[in-house]
Amino acid sequence: MDKKGTVYLVGSGPGGLSLMTKRAREVLDMAEVILYDQLPGEEILASLPAHAEKIDVGKYGDHHTREQDEIEQLMVSYAEQGRSVVRLKGGDPFLFGRGGEELETLRAHNISVEVVPGVTSAIAVPASVGIPVTHRKFASQVTILTGNEDPTKEESAIDWDWLARSRGTIVILMGVKNLGKIATFLVDHGMDAATPVAVIERGLRPNQRETIGTLETIAERAQERKVRPPAVIVIGGVVSLYTGEYVIPR
Amino acid sequence: MDKKGTVYLVGSGPGGLSLMTKRAREVLDMAEVILYDQLPGEEILASLPAHAEKIDVGKYGDHHTREQDEIEQLMVSYAEQGRSVVRLKGGDPFLFGRGGEELETLRAHNISVEVVPGVTSAIAVPASVGIPVTHRKFASQVTILTGNEDPTKEESAIDWDWLARSRGTIVILMGVKNLGKIATFLVDHGMDAATPVAVIERGLRPNQRETIGTLETIAERAQERKVRPPAVIVIGGVVSLYTGEYVIPR
Repeated sequence: MDKKGTVYLVGSGPGGLSLMTKRAREVLDMAEVILYDQLPGEEILASLPAHAEKIDVGKYGDHHTREQDEIEQLMVSYAEQGRSVVRLKGGDPFLFGRGGEELETLRAHNISVEVVPGVTSAIAVPASVGIPVTHRKFASQVTILTGNEDPTKEESAIDWDWLARSRGTIVILMGVKNLGKIATFLVDHGMDAATPVAVIERGLRPNQRETIGTLETIAERAQERKVRPPAVIVIGGVVSLYTGEYVIPR
Repeated sequence: MDKKGTVYLVGSGPGGLSLMTKRAREVLDMAEVILYDQLPGEEILASLPAHAEKIDVGKYGDHHTREQDEIEQLMVSYAEQGRSVVRLKGGDPFLFGRGGEELETLRAHNISVEVVPGVTSAIAVPASVGIPVTHRKFASQVTILTGNEDPTKEESAIDWDWLARSRGTIVILMGVKNLGKIATFLVDHGMDAATPVAVIERGLRPNQRETIGTLETIAERAQERKVRPPAVIVIGGVVSLYTGEYVIPR
């Protein structure tokens, strides 16, 4: 029997090459096959080695579940051919990166796996404009979730009602589409309407932009400014530390 | 007036050199003064450039607040002498790293600051043993906090009662001392006693060790095995994915 290849589940971090880890760079440079989508961004995608076979597995359609299965099957099949496979993700593979499910599938096929964690946009994107997700004066805890589910939907996997009672920082990824509903829901369930909110589009990319408001005003401001995904939403007192100055170079 | 130096608030990530970002490496290599403690770990501390002045500002006593002020004053004073200063931290500077407060102080002195985010141990240490902090089957959200406050203390900054109603993953840093109280408190306030818990000591260091249990059993197991800080505590269904196999090389 031929020797199986290793699959590397790699987080490239939130921005360009400078926030990628040494291990991510090493693994990319020795990969034989790289399964990528657009999330790691142009600078990183342009740096992928010429010798590697590069396959765009971006989920651009509506059939996400099936496509996730297909991506996992591709990883398995290339590894079973004995090739070194990188699954390249933006941010970190294990925070909403489906890395956990991919790891399970690969283990079920007895394929060896290495996880390469990345700097997560959930913390680094707020940091880029001076917003710490925790701070002694403002927040002793941070809750991170995705906002791609309507909070008024009965069967939501997120416990929005519980979330409305958070006294800490809330960071929402993939929530732009539902921003208005989320803000209204949180206020209706008891959060102070004056709680500050930052929506940071294209964080750590050259065209980053921030929209600042409160739970009461943010939806209207975002609409006026035509805020579009991808964006990181930060809710909580720490947002009051925003000054408009970038402290992480983009 | 002389030109002020820049202060870099740098996260070195959770382990050795391989999980440090390119930017962290660059900034360390050009630093004139490096203020460090032991958290970045031996491998990284041994890699600091010979030409830099290296100052151990570790908080080894009991007067943390005063010492934090002193660290901030050191940063300010070196920067005002026109020197490039790195404040080196393990993990990420803005997740319980006091980076937010340091940024405020530096801004108040008109000192330019660059933040260099790092891979956080809160996500990467669980990942190292195959525990994703989020997973479609187990957890749609993660709450990260420090456990250095007794949950039964009335004036705790953490809303432990709220936390006990979390349906997502809970990651606790600096909680070993209070592990028993935390587990009991969460069960007493309604969390299922069978909720799985992992305590991961010295994550991503060569002598990493995991202790696995449930809210009901973890305190006793930790005591039997003489679990010591530093450790990352993970509470939630995702812990059931633990297999004992390392997927991030230490």
